[in-house]
Amino acid sequence: MDDPWMECMDHCIAVTKEAGKVIREALLKDISVMQKSSPVDLVTETDQKVETLIISSIKKKYPNHSFIGEESVAAGAPSILTDNPTWIIDPIDGTTNFVHRFPFVSVSVGFTVNKEIEFGVVYSCVEEKMYTARKGKGAFCNGVPIKVSGQEDITKSLVLTEMGFKPDAQNFRAMMTNMESILTIPVHGIRAPGSAAVNMCLVACGAADAYYHIGIHCWDMAGGAAIIREAGGVIMDITGGPFDLMSRRLITASSKAIAEHIAQKIQPFPCGRDDTEN
Amino acid sequence: MDDPWMECMDHCIAVTKEAGKVIREALLKDISVMQKSSPVDLVTETDQKVETLIISSIKKKYPNHSFIGEESVAAGAPSILTDNPTWIIDPIDGTTNFVHRFPFVSVSVGFTVNKEIEFGVVYSCVEEKMYTARKGKGAFCNGVPIKVSGQEDITKSLVLTEMGFKPDAQNFRAMMTNMESILTIPVHGIRAPGSAAVNMCLVACGAADAYYHIGIHCWDMAGGAAIIREAGGVIMDITGGPFDLMSRRLITASSKAIAEHIAQKIQPFPCGRDDTEN
Repeated sequence: MDDPWMECMDHCIAVTKEAGKVIREALLKDISVMQKSSPVDLVTETDQKVETLIISSIKKKYPNHSFIGEESVAAGAPSILTDNPTWIIDPIDGTTNFVHRFPFVSVSVGFTVNKEIEFGVVYSCVEEKMYTARKGKGAFCNGVPIKVSGQEDITKSLVLTEMGFKPDAQNFRAMMTNMESILTIPVHGIRAPGSAAVNMCLVACGAADAYYHIGIHCWDMAGGAAIIREAGGVIMDITGGPFDLMSRRLITASSKAIAEHIAQKIQPFPCGRDDTEN
Repeated sequence: MDDPWMECMDHCIAVTKEAGKVIREALLKDISVMQKSSPVDLVTETDQKVETLIISSIKKKYPNHSFIGEESVAAGAPSILTDNPTWIIDPIDGTTNFVHRFPFVSVSVGFTVNKEIEFGVVYSCVEEKMYTARKGKGAFCNGVPIKVSGQEDITKSLVLTEMGFKPDAQNFRAMMTNMESILTIPVHGIRAPGSAAVNMCLVACGAADAYYHIGIHCWDMAGGAAIIREAGGVIMDITGGPFDLMSRRLITASSKAIAEHIAQKIQPFPCGRDDTEN
């Protein structure tokens, strides 16, 4: 077989579509919300139900593969990426959006082998947009090829980020200062849609020119990283160094010029790593 | 005739749908962008084309009605609201989104008689969502009744706002401080979709619990104001006083409790009025 992972990708798309259907149905019902640690950090029954649905379906077909998933990790254990084929899963990316029925909610799956991302699938399930990318084969939305805007001038760019309350006052201040630094470049604007995986796809399809985030998780980024790269985009660490899936931070952009400009403007703040106990 | 303005509303919905189609078609083509005064303030050929389309269609049917429109105003003259039936039109609400093909772009029309808003129509034309509200008759999205979330606890709320660079340093600082004050309440999150009219509709249908904005225009608010009120929402000035369509500022929310909490937290800054020379 030429491409040993294509079958995995096809299975991934099928199960992600099914998961998205479960999410859409849940959005029509009343939601009983459980809280993790704060009102900002919400998790729902659907989140766990969808993760179980995805993992059990994949385990049945690929019993020797490994898994890193948001909900399993919340129960303990750091996320250690090995050389084994690994599915990195966010069952509902945009949990707060989900709880509020704000229309950017996605299922995100990235698949790694030898610690390299082989493919990514992000299903923005309210919009019914299925983003897919296999390494070296391009990126697609509902089967139609997508590419980044190609914008190189940051003063003509639309930038995505996330903003939320942070209990650590210094981190919160740094987040606000970073946003101010970007706005005063100036850029065309900042948008905050509230789903990391969707943000990456919006850059991938040229609807925005950049996205930066400190405090993101590997399961938010793994699927989108494949899609961004295959759409011709750039992904790097917020310091301007190489992208590190476990670093909990990223800049992604339509061009190296814009990504590097953002790296110069923003200040990192401590957010731990996904592969260590924090 | 029981309701003299229902015919106007039906005509409004028809022409707004037509306008949305023109916008969607334009989004498929390359866009030649013209600049108003700064890179942040973009206007496109389509903006003018759509306004002409809407106004000429309405003028033909209602030659004695008045008009207030974003593009006509940009050419000069303050917006003076009279007792005459008046169509307040934003041909493309979310011009920056439009230029970037970011998916929240809307056509917004509000209709006043004796300075009172009689109906509002907002067509989020990429999502193909037609929001409509006739005074006293409820609010709808694609014909289905909508209502606000009813949330009264701000710590469980999702808040919408807009953020952009402001040349006046004090105003920019005030905007950032306001955002910080809201985030530290804390709320579930802040989202910034980039279309004022869509923001109001998102609150109206319960996908968010509040939206505040200083520096907005009457044509961004007139259509949405009718929709918010008919969906059971609250609309007020940012000081907590009565809403003033020409004041360039608003708070809208799912409940009086949340709107008043936001009024207490944010500081006004000067933004002029729509009905005076600024």
